[in-house]
Amino acid sequence: MSSVTFDRIAIIGLGLIGSSIGHAIKRGQLAGHIAGYARTEDTRKTALEIGFVDSVHDTAAEAVEGADLTLVCVPVGICGQVTQELSPSLKPGSIITDVGSVKQAVITAMSPHVPQGVHFIPGHPIAGTEHSGPQSGFATLFDGRWCILTPVAGTDEQALQKLTGFWQACGSMVDTMAPDHHDQVLAITSHLPQLIAYNIVGTVTELEEDTQSEVTKFSASGFRDFTRLAASDPIMWRDICIANRDAILEMLGRFTEDLTSLQRSIRRGDADKLQELFTSTRDMRRKIVEAGQDTPEADFGRHASDDSAKD
Amino acid sequence: MSSVTFDRIAIIGLGLIGSSIGHAIKRGQLAGHIAGYARTEDTRKTALEIGFVDSVHDTAAEAVEGADLTLVCVPVGICGQVTQELSPSLKPGSIITDVGSVKQAVITAMSPHVPQGVHFIPGHPIAGTEHSGPQSGFATLFDGRWCILTPVAGTDEQALQKLTGFWQACGSMVDTMAPDHHDQVLAITSHLPQLIAYNIVGTVTELEEDTQSEVTKFSASGFRDFTRLAASDPIMWRDICIANRDAILEMLGRFTEDLTSLQRSIRRGDADKLQELFTSTRDMRRKIVEAGQDTPEADFGRHASDDSAKD
Repeated sequence: MSSVTFDRIAIIGLGLIGSSIGHAIKRGQLAGHIAGYARTEDTRKTALEIGFVDSVHDTAAEAVEGADLTLVCVPVGICGQVTQELSPSLKPGSIITDVGSVKQAVITAMSPHVPQGVHFIPGHPIAGTEHSGPQSGFATLFDGRWCILTPVAGTDEQALQKLTGFWQACGSMVDTMAPDHHDQVLAITSHLPQLIAYNIVGTVTELEEDTQSEVTKFSASGFRDFTRLAASDPIMWRDICIANRDAILEMLGRFTEDLTSLQRSIRRGDADKLQELFTSTRDMRRKIVEAGQDTPEADFGRHASDDSAKD
Repeated sequence: MSSVTFDRIAIIGLGLIGSSIGHAIKRGQLAGHIAGYARTEDTRKTALEIGFVDSVHDTAAEAVEGADLTLVCVPVGICGQVTQELSPSLKPGSIITDVGSVKQAVITAMSPHVPQGVHFIPGHPIAGTEHSGPQSGFATLFDGRWCILTPVAGTDEQALQKLTGFWQACGSMVDTMAPDHHDQVLAITSHLPQLIAYNIVGTVTELEEDTQSEVTKFSASGFRDFTRLAASDPIMWRDICIANRDAILEMLGRFTEDLTSLQRSIRRGDADKLQELFTSTRDMRRKIVEAGQDTPEADFGRHASDDSAKD
């Protein structure tokens, strides 16, 4: 599967993404040694037991010692601080990248701490589940999923190719994009849906206790699908909201305008307008299925897990 | 599987729900004869070809002739009109029920047309997919799903038991509820999520063409899940919005208030408040999984269809 190998790879942060990268590296035999770092001893111990890293270290600086590739897999809000900590140990000529869901803020936070001669290439694998922690990772998480790299001006072409090859060997399709454009696109495709899901579940948790139990009972009628999204890692999403504030507020503004208009149509009983909106949205679904981003099979809400995505 | 049999059942409306009921009746051998009616000749022909009805008829009145159970499976907005049409042919002592997602408005529309001596028991099977039409039905749609009956005052106990047994034989779990309470609960669990999904997909379809293609490309990051809901039958949802207006507007109002507050927290960079909301929503997910309404397995967005739900 792979033609790209790094002698030593460091994974900083061993949650869902960090652990999945470890598993993917093992699967593809992409590194001679994987060094891991996590903030808590518990996580480091678990990681070593599961075996998606070969060694764990008490500090991020120790973990990156001698690494040819450093992957920063911590929440967006502490990327800068963590990079500052490990920066003195970065090997000249090595590559450092991240996996954050926001790119401009991460570049601003990390760049100042990356020494000359080290290649910083920001990245974002678009993959995840609603689970978190070192136990939640698996080797196939990135298979067939996009990974967006947002190289900054003057990026070394060879380093970019090497990182591209690495993600492809992890199973990803790789695309490059300007950081600000990335942040706008993800505000729509990911951040807005996530916030809407959090918000609707939040609205329900404010209802009286007895209504809540009925909501649970009959949740299969639509609500349930939002709770899955709303079970995602709170720290990660808190940081994304703050880091991509402007693009998110822009999209939330558009969404709210449209919702107000929909509310008005319902209040007025404007059947034609309602039907028009509800018909136009079908087209978007068709495009997504055609683009191979989803299957046309009906969703019964509860489904067998995808065996091909687990091994 | 079944101990309940009707000599003759009429299914009025042969879309996703009507056709699935036909398949479920066949599977359980619950009727001696299934008579079907649909507005268009095309649908009637298709239904007969697929074979989930034994006969089709040019009018609803003809179809219900001699039926012991009549199932009205048309959009909520035309329930009243259809019942008026078929009313003269309803057999004394027979049961008539519906499958509408709103109950108060349906009762108001249908009741005046149900003759004395015929048992009208409103119902709502909480099951569906994003597909519509006579080809979209399948026998297992109702398996393990709730069906809510909302009997009105003075309902015949024996008729209620018979209808309950029918839905159980179709695979459902049956619950009874007051009509107005049903409408409130469904406004939260079903109608609000559906409208939110329509709205977010609508917002995206208003974006520039080139952004849209990127949204499609990267839709797996969250947006995709909303498009599935937003591909549901527009007529059905138009009618639900109008029929359950008050309960829907109440829930939309709460949702909008909460969204405004979330927007404010993002604008102010209020990390604590964001984290608090994003943490509280995890609990609701746990309750739903515990209630057996969803599986805890991670969702990779694209999954194998549930083999147990298709035969």
